[in-house]
Amino acid sequence: MSNTTIKDIARICGVGVSTVSRAINNHPDINPETKKKIMAVIEEYGFVPNDSARYLKRSESDSIAFLVKGISNPFFLGMVRIMEQFTQKKNYAAILRHVDDDQDEVSVAQALVKERKLKGIVFLGGNFNHTPESLQQIGVPYIFCTVGNEDEFQMEGRPRVRDQVRYANVAVDDLAESEKAVLYLIEQGHRHIGIITEGLDKPSVGQLRFLGYQKALRERGMAFDPNLVYEIKTKSAERYTRENGYLGAQALMRDNPGLTAIFCISDVIAIGAIRAIIDSGRKIPEDVSVVGYDGIDEGKYCVPRLTTIEQPQSEMAEATIQFLFDMIGGKRQPDNLLMPAKLVIRESSGSGYRPEAG
Amino acid sequence: MSNTTIKDIARICGVGVSTVSRAINNHPDINPETKKKIMAVIEEYGFVPNDSARYLKRSESDSIAFLVKGISNPFFLGMVRIMEQFTQKKNYAAILRHVDDDQDEVSVAQALVKERKLKGIVFLGGNFNHTPESLQQIGVPYIFCTVGNEDEFQMEGRPRVRDQVRYANVAVDDLAESEKAVLYLIEQGHRHIGIITEGLDKPSVGQLRFLGYQKALRERGMAFDPNLVYEIKTKSAERYTRENGYLGAQALMRDNPGLTAIFCISDVIAIGAIRAIIDSGRKIPEDVSVVGYDGIDEGKYCVPRLTTIEQPQSEMAEATIQFLFDMIGGKRQPDNLLMPAKLVIRESSGSGYRPEAG
Repeated sequence: MSNTTIKDIARICGVGVSTVSRAINNHPDINPETKKKIMAVIEEYGFVPNDSARYLKRSESDSIAFLVKGISNPFFLGMVRIMEQFTQKKNYAAILRHVDDDQDEVSVAQALVKERKLKGIVFLGGNFNHTPESLQQIGVPYIFCTVGNEDEFQMEGRPRVRDQVRYANVAVDDLAESEKAVLYLIEQGHRHIGIITEGLDKPSVGQLRFLGYQKALRERGMAFDPNLVYEIKTKSAERYTRENGYLGAQALMRDNPGLTAIFCISDVIAIGAIRAIIDSGRKIPEDVSVVGYDGIDEGKYCVPRLTTIEQPQSEMAEATIQFLFDMIGGKRQPDNLLMPAKLVIRESSGSGYRPEAG
Repeated sequence: MSNTTIKDIARICGVGVSTVSRAINNHPDINPETKKKIMAVIEEYGFVPNDSARYLKRSESDSIAFLVKGISNPFFLGMVRIMEQFTQKKNYAAILRHVDDDQDEVSVAQALVKERKLKGIVFLGGNFNHTPESLQQIGVPYIFCTVGNEDEFQMEGRPRVRDQVRYANVAVDDLAESEKAVLYLIEQGHRHIGIITEGLDKPSVGQLRFLGYQKALRERGMAFDPNLVYEIKTKSAERYTRENGYLGAQALMRDNPGLTAIFCISDVIAIGAIRAIIDSGRKIPEDVSVVGYDGIDEGKYCVPRLTTIEQPQSEMAEATIQFLFDMIGGKRQPDNLLMPAKLVIRESSGSGYRPEAG
């Protein structure tokens, strides 16, 4: 029986052709027992899936949407790439959707679900400022990934959405990781550490990382100086840019003659800051140290190489998309996944001890 | 009649609600006369589209697919971002699909059309090596963008697919633009110019840019030296990487003591090459000049800033997606659009005259 077709397999197993197709394509919507049986029959009869079987017409609703805020950030794009490949292997279509800064991504999601009958949604980037009611209306499995989410960090005085609705979330501990980066700079002897951040007026990644910066200063008994804070305020979801890092470092150097280090809440911002520092005639790290956040490929090759908080990009992307498919398949309940980041010390940072300060 | 609903408008115009929705949403699939009439009625009665009208359930087939080869290249990702936003404004979904190096994107497209009932396809990156027969089977409007396409450059001894099937294509003249970059290096006095390229064994962007390099040497009566060619051979669609640029520059410096310049067929490759040159203790541009190709944002901030062939990224992306929608709307026939690139001279290149060579 060398020319076994997909129809033969379906007949032998007593299931429909579409069920066989689901088994072959590793589709999550299939009873594991049924799948096992089908795969055993396929093994026995030597059926090799051909193109017409693989591309068997599927429901158009088999799509996952990726809603991205800050889409020009290479960090997010790297994650989309990994998740799209995973989605493709599952034979789902990946719908990419850029969300503007002034758009609410949950409303966008609700509309997309109605229009496209999605099977699941990944929210990437941006901030978590959603109500339990709006989350409950999404109607399909969804997950947040690298979204600034104060819910996870038990910030005082704010009600936790998680206490009212369970949702899935994958992130690093933005507050603690920033604290780690700034503690490292303090240990290197830096006493005038600037920060380039954004979104301080609302719950955001920038706010969380800024709070980590403040916490590190407090722990070491250092005074907080508002002059050392540069807040990016451009009106666009694309605030994590080299240009904003450049402008931020220029302003910090102008306003703080004693500045010896800058912590940037993203790598692209840090790379812009490096350029501004070099253009000002200062040396890195001899005059000014720079620390970024993310761990993008560009930071391994830039001159000087960038010290950074490296988020586990591939692991986070894989965990996120796997989690989503597990929820779609009913195998897992929404939950919070906090992953560890690490401080990677490269060439852009060094001692903050200065002769005149000694 | 302040509470005019979409149903009222439809009744007044004598059309269906979905037609009114198409008019409101600037959908291309609508008779221009009908649209004009509907918009006039809307203006007269003061109807303001609300969410329920805007999100009126649409056919799930209103999607555009973006098939990308080399998806980690920031140049392509920047284009996807622009085209996705355009697609979103047209109220279509953008399906993102990464195509592996060993996959034929036209076959992938044919399968997607069957599965998803797409309205149109953009092929981004990769090489043009398709037969008229396979192109004719796609079945929906499609366009190639920044695809290495020898068809456009009248390469001798090869039959042109364009003579047998009309297809839409947006690109720069890869051969002529590379020639321009290398002529510039020769004019600067460089006599030992390396190249980091890829895909020399088949029609490809790398081959076209390599042919431009050879042509420039020939024009100036310089001998071609195979030792000065580094061909990236990693097995993956992601060959345009900083790492490959790093390895390429290392090899070229090792094999060519007299090397004074490297032309790289992309900016990310050039940025990796810069890092390798600096790590070897050489100065840029005093010892080695580097020229890239693409014009990505990273090249404006890296140290030293990158001299490059700047493709008109935004204009190409906008022209491509506009062209596609025009074809979908029946307003335009497939055609070839060659756009001009420009040589942008920054800090990574300089004089090639050396005391010992004088």
